[in-house]
Parts: sequence; structure tokens; C-alpha cells
Amino acid sequence: MFNLKLIRNVLGLLLMLNGLFMLLCIPTSLYYGDGDTRAFVLSSAISFNVGFLLWFFSRHHDKKLTYKDGYLIVSLGWIALSLSGCLPYVASGTIPKFSSAIFETISGFTTTGSSVLTDIEAAPKGILLWRSMTQWIGGMGIIVLTVAILPILGVGGMQLFMAESPGPTASKLHPRITETAKRLWYIYASLTMIEIVALYFAGMSFYDAVNHAFATVSTGGFSTKNASVAAYDSPMIQYIITLFMFCGGLNFTLFYFVLKLKFGEITKNEEFRFYLGLVVATTLVLVFFLQLFVGSDLEENFRMALFQVVSIVTTTGFATADYTIWGYFPTLAIFLLMFFGASAGSTAGGIKIVRHLLIVKNGWCELKRIMHPSAIIPVRYNGKAVDQKIIYNILAFFFLYLTIFIIGSIVMTAYGYDMLTAAGATISSLGNIGPGIGDVGPAYNFAFFPESAKLFLAFLMLIGRLEIFTVMLLFLPAFWRRNG
Amino acid sequence: MFNLKLIRNVLGLLLMLNGLFMLLCIPTSLYYGDGDTRAFVLSSAISFNVGFLLWFFSRHHDKKLTYKDGYLIVSLGWIALSLSGCLPYVASGTIPKFSSAIFETISGFTTTGSSVLTDIEAAPKGILLWRSMTQWIGGMGIIVLTVAILPILGVGGMQLFMAESPGPTASKLHPRITETAKRLWYIYASLTMIEIVALYFAGMSFYDAVNHAFATVSTGGFSTKNASVAAYDSPMIQYIITLFMFCGGLNFTLFYFVLKLKFGEITKNEEFRFYLGLVVATTLVLVFFLQLFVGSDLEENFRMALFQVVSIVTTTGFATADYTIWGYFPTLAIFLLMFFGASAGSTAGGIKIVRHLLIVKNGWCELKRIMHPSAIIPVRYNGKAVDQKIIYNILAFFFLYLTIFIIGSIVMTAYGYDMLTAAGATISSLGNIGPGIGDVGPAYNFAFFPESAKLFLAFLMLIGRLEIFTVMLLFLPAFWRRNG
Repeated sequence: MFNLKLIRNVLGLLLMLNGLFMLLCIPTSLYYGDGDTRAFVLSSAISFNVGFLLWFFSRHHDKKLTYKDGYLIVSLGWIALSLSGCLPYVASGTIPKFSSAIFETISGFTTTGSSVLTDIEAAPKGILLWRSMTQWIGGMGIIVLTVAILPILGVGGMQLFMAESPGPTASKLHPRITETAKRLWYIYASLTMIEIVALYFAGMSFYDAVNHAFATVSTGGFSTKNASVAAYDSPMIQYIITLFMFCGGLNFTLFYFVLKLKFGEITKNEEFRFYLGLVVATTLVLVFFLQLFVGSDLEENFRMALFQVVSIVTTTGFATADYTIWGYFPTLAIFLLMFFGASAGSTAGGIKIVRHLLIVKNGWCELKRIMHPSAIIPVRYNGKAVDQKIIYNILAFFFLYLTIFIIGSIVMTAYGYDMLTAAGATISSLGNIGPGIGDVGPAYNFAFFPESAKLFLAFLMLIGRLEIFTVMLLFLPAFWRRNG
Repeated sequence: MFNLKLIRNVLGLLLMLNGLFMLLCIPTSLYYGDGDTRAFVLSSAISFNVGFLLWFFSRHHDKKLTYKDGYLIVSLGWIALSLSGCLPYVASGTIPKFSSAIFETISGFTTTGSSVLTDIEAAPKGILLWRSMTQWIGGMGIIVLTVAILPILGVGGMQLFMAESPGPTASKLHPRITETAKRLWYIYASLTMIEIVALYFAGMSFYDAVNHAFATVSTGGFSTKNASVAAYDSPMIQYIITLFMFCGGLNFTLFYFVLKLKFGEITKNEEFRFYLGLVVATTLVLVFFLQLFVGSDLEENFRMALFQVVSIVTTTGFATADYTIWGYFPTLAIFLLMFFGASAGSTAGGIKIVRHLLIVKNGWCELKRIMHPSAIIPVRYNGKAVDQKIIYNILAFFFLYLTIFIIGSIVMTAYGYDMLTAAGATISSLGNIGPGIGDVGPAYNFAFFPESAKLFLAFLMLIGRLEIFTVMLLFLPAFWRRNG
């Protein structure tokens, strides 16, 4: 019933690609001489060869792809990348425990950024580059996923958010996917390169600039420093990273309009307006609180508030300050931001702003519908009426998301953690953010969790990253039935 | 545009009724001689006369009632009752501050049960009877509201939950409402009387039995004791109250089936099964935790867990133990129960179990819909397909509920309270429960909040009690436009 040959073929290609990316870490490893070169050679060889075998014996496959094959490829693809991606950590001895290494790798490929490393700066430089690279690769994967694959599979109302771009039609699926993905990767790679240059000229070492750019544009959040971005007290560096985190949280199709100089199209986009408004409003409120209760340097407070807000809303997770010590109100504000996520069609995780926007609009319309029971009142987005089916799908998505958040929090309190830590670790993982609240705030890491809890949180990262439905479908018995 | 005469007429009747109920407290007041008799005479006279004037000058009114009139009557009715109901507190000096008295009265009429009294036992006995009576009257109001009025107004999918009872038809609206309401009040009054007798024979004083029965059947939760039901160490009393709280949380139309001995209809009812299952499952899990970490007396642990679970899920709010000191996991479990509420068509507040049930079912159907995009897969409830419009309405209700909960929590943290206290006070008020978590746990009360925060929480009680939409509609500008 499944096109297993094609699935094996794709997984093989992904593993081979992963192996090639690992090779890119070898020059760095040799340059710094931290003794991790052998680990890369070994890991790369295993990944590439396993991938090659998978690919070689499935070369002659049927091109026909069903929806079910699509879901399987997406989930298995991320798992295969993670299984192969954890090899360098284990082989180099940086993270000897397999489950912890899996956590770190999934945290990378899902662009979450939660870490089990207690002393990041002590890790070999090659390994840290690989760590940042997993996020960058993950970001590439997400772009294809959200812009090209999920809309076709009809997951979470994704078909809607791509309305502006020339969407793929069923008849010529394959060339369109390739074309769209290529364009977006070009934007993604350009952003990365511009940020590397900018950070380098702002005073970062080239090595750190590459790592941080990888982790910014992918909204990942892995840093090469124990103190995250707080290690750089240059305001310029912090502002640059803030800007690129914000860009990472934009719908990538908006960059088309930038290239075509159609700025009107961007400012008219409702999601963009809400995104910008959310960032500005939350920052201003936090600056107000910081001025009153924390410190008095306005520029510093503004920079701190803006950085933290953008870092959380884009689900990057870099930190220049520990918001959990700012007080109850700012902590709650940041915690709630974790449920937003930035724009759909970006590398950000979370629920995404457009979904919130449509749910709020729908609630408003529902009030009107109650008053006029016979009238048909559609939700409008960017000037167009939205199909009720999509609203429906989004509401179901939201509810499933919340249910998983609640179940996750229950599980974490059952481990004995307090409610804030439990809720923080869960939403941070599910929303692919990085830091949470409580004992997993920005000043801490995830090393103290038992191994089983780490695997559980890694599973949440995967569900969140793949827009929930993609993974949850695999748990439906009907999925595995021939005619289901 | 509004039928103001009819609205005044109904409000007048409600105030007159309130005045008469106050008279009923005078014998008690005289018997105990706590000096609150004058307060009742005065309050009753004011309420009755204001009501009479309103009624008298609107006797000759047009019988035609629009939807809009319906929403206005419901909201204004509750407000009028509360404004008049707070007079005895103020006049007797038990609660001298008007805003605090309003809080206590709204907490009564909405059957919430949160209190600003720090020493309940020091209050005059007549006043405490009035306090319990506000909950009982509130319960009566809710029954008409949820069973007869809201389904017609189409609020929150309520039309669905009454499918089993012979619903009113538009053509003969008035006689049907009266008939249905009368039947249900009969059940309500019978339950109250049976509980009074049961509590009296279990060892309560007659006065306490009446007060606790009023507060149980209405799922209100006001007690005449500082320690709430924990003041009675008789297991029998605690079990009796548990049973009647559970009954108060049942869909009252189910009692028809009891009277007709059709028990099969009850056990087949999906909401009932889920309600029972939720209570049993949560109790068992909590007993397990209590055995492990708190005490070792199995019967006591079972009784404690069951009482607290039933008290919270039915939104009564009586307490025999402080669940916030049981540990993180039990506290989270109880906190989550606060979002459930018991059955629709009961006196319980909250979201209601049937809504959760339908949302979960819809989530499941949505997964199937994604797999089979062209198939029409309706949600089924009690064997029948549910109209998508109703599911839609419920999803919007759920989201609005959550939004208000979040806004409430933000406001409370802005007052400077910690996140647990803020979330606890908000959901406790919105869900008409009584105790929350944090500093508003069952061992504490709401006296310490600033007056403005009390009014805010009272507003939340009102929104929650009136199923949100009813009140929110009044905030729509279109509601006040002639052709809106």
C-alpha cells in the first residue's frame, strides 16, 4: 500500500546529504585540533554509506506518491536525520549518552535550541559547528515543508498561507515544489551570508559569526557561548541578531516582494502587521516595566526587552538576559509569547501568528453569526474570504496543540517538577523555542532531566515542528489500513 | 429598537422576587437575634418597591421579544439581582464596602462561592442564610437560562445539549419555557429538600443543613463554617455532600429518565459517561498519589480525593482538604479540572464536559478528514450527527473562554500577583468555582485583593456564568445599531 521504495529512496538521499554536511565540519575540526576529526570521518562514512545503500537499491521506483507516503516521508525523514546527526556527538564523546545526544540532535534539526551541554565552550569547535549546522539544515527542511509540502497535504490550514505565491497545482506538482524550494533556499542562504558578514564586521570572530548566523536565520538558538548572546556586550551585535531573528520569523514569500520593491504588498499583509505590532507592543510594555522595577538605562532596557521578545516570538531562543527574574508580569508575558510563534512560511516554530489572527477573527464573526443566525459571515484574511474548512482545520489544530501542551505538562509534573518548570519545558519543546520558564529559564539548560524525560521532550519538539497533524496521523489505526 | 418596556417589566419582577426572598431571612434573623433584622426589612423594602415601580409602569407592554432583548434581559437581570442582593450585606454592616459586597453577591448569584468574609462564623446567621440563598436563587436562574433561554438564543452550541428533552419551538415559545422551567425547578427543589433531610439526620444542625443544601445543589459552595465542609469530620456528611454535588453537576433532564426508571438512557448518555469516567479516573490517580506521598489511610484518602475532585469538577468549591499542599502533580490535576465544569444543563459553571467531548471528537474527525479530503465526516454525539455549525460555535466559545482566561491572568499578574495565584483567581472566577490555586487556594479567601481587582473578578464570574457570548455580544457596536 505504501510506496516503500520511494520512501527508502528519499531517506537514502537525506542520509547521504547529512553525511556530506558532516564532511564540511572536518576542516574546522582540523584547524582547531580539538580531536574530533575521527568522529566526523566515522559519522560521515556511516551516514553516507547507509544512505547510499538505501538509495541504490531503490533507484528504480514508481514516481507515484500518495498522501500517506508524504506523511511518512516527512516524519521518517526528520527521524532519520536525527539518528544519523547524533553520531558525531556520541563518537567524539562530547555527549556520550545516546538519549542525550538524540535530544541535542532533534533540538538542532527542529531548530529548537534546548541543550544538554552544561559547558558549551569546552566542547570541540568542530562539534559546535555541526550543532549549529543541524539547525541550519533543519531550517532548510522546514522551508520546503511549510511552503511546498504541507500546503499540498492540507495540514493545519497551510494551504491558505501560501495564497500570495504562485502555488503548486496538482498536475505539475514536482517541478513547482523544486522551483519554489530553490527560490526560498536562495533567500535563506543570502540572509545567512549577509548576517555572517554583518556579525564579523561588528566584531565577532569569523567562526562565531558563522555559528550564530546559522542559528539565527533558522530561528534555532544554539550559541557557541555558555552565556548565549549575552557573552557579546556589543549593542551592535545584539541589534544585528535581533534584526535577523525578526527576518527569520517573516513569511519567506514576503522577500519576493522586497526583491520586486513592492513594499506596499508587505505593509498590507495582515500577518506581517500583527507580527510587527505584537513585537512593538510587547517590547514597549516590557520596557515600561523594566524602567519601573529593574534598571534605569532606557537604551539597555529597550535592547534587552526587544531582544528577548523577538527571540521568543520567533522561537529562536537566544538570550541576552534572564526574563524569569524580571517579575511575574514580564514572565507571564514572555510565557504567553511562546504560544504565538512568528509567521507561517518562516523557519519559526509554534502555533504561528496567522492562526491566532484567524481564530480571533472567527470568534468575532461568530458573535455576529449568533446575532444574525441566517446570515453567512465569512472570515476575511488579506481581503479575501477564507474557506470555512480551513478555519475549521485551524481550530482543530489549535485544540490539538493545547491538548498536547497540557498532556506534556501533566507528564512533567508527574516527574516531580513544579508547574512553571513543567509548563515551560513543554511549551519550549513543543514550540521549538529553547528556553522556558521556571528551572528551564534562559539561565539554565535541559541537562538535569532524566533520560526518559529528555526523549519525551524531544518527541514534543518533533510533533511541534511537523505541525502536529503530520505526526499524529501516524497514530491513527486507519492510517495503517489498506483502505483507511 | 429594544422592547424597553418588556425589559423593565422583567427586571421589575426579578427585583420584587428578590425582595420577597429577603423577607424569608427575617424569621431566622429574629430567631438568632444577631441584629440584622432591620437590614433585611430595609433591603427587602427597597428591592420590592423599586421592582414594583419598574413593573407597574411597564404592565402594558408589547409581548414581542427579539433576540437582542433576550440577551439584554439575561445580562441586566443578573446585574439587577446582584445590585439589590448586596443591600443586606451593606445595611447590616457585615460587608461595609460596596464593591466587596457586590463581589460577594455576584459570587452568590453566579454560584461561584468565592468569599471576602475572613471570619464567616462571626457574621449574623440571617445574613449567612441570605448568602446561601443567593446561590440557590442563582441556581434556579441558571436552570432556566441553560435549558430554556440559551438554546433558543443559540449561544455556545446550547441548542444541542437539550436534544433529548422536548425542546421549545418558536411558535409556542412562552408556554414551553414555563413548562420546562417548572419541571426542572421541581427536581431542583426536591433535591434540595432531600439533601436537607439527609444532612440533618447525618448530624448537622437544621440551620447548617439548609445552608449547605442550598449551596450544594446550586453548585455554589458558600459554607457557614470558616473551614468549609472540613468543619464536619463525619464521613457520612462528607459523602452526602459529595453525592449531591455530583447530582448538581448532572444534566437535569437526565432526572426525567430517573423518574421514568429508564436507566438505560442515562448510561448511554455520552456526557454522563465522560463525567463519571473523569471523576473516577481523577480520583483514583489522586488516591494513588496521596497514598504514596501524603497519608496512608485509604478510606480517608479516597474520601478526600473524591470530595475535592467532585467539588472542583462540578464548580461547587466546598473543601475538606487543601489540595495545593498535596504536591505539584495533584495541584495541576485539580487546576486542569477547573477547565472542565460538569454537564451542560446543570447548575455547574465552566466550559462543560460536552463541549470538551465534542472538541476532542472533532479533532479526531479532523485527522480523518485530512486523510480523506473529499469525504464528509460529521462528529457524532449520542448516536446522532452534529451540525457543523454547532461544532463551530463550540470551538469559537472555547477559544473566547481561553482568551478571557489569559487576559484575566495578565491583569492579575499586573496587579503584582504570582502566576499561579493570578491563573487560579481568574479560572476560579470565570468557571464559577470558588477556590483557585496559589494564594487563593481552598485554605484562603479573596478578601486581600484590592477593590478594583474584586470588581474585575466579579465581572469574570458574570461572563462565565452567562456563557460568555451573552455578555460579549453587548460589547459589539453592531448590537446597539438599529439594523445591526
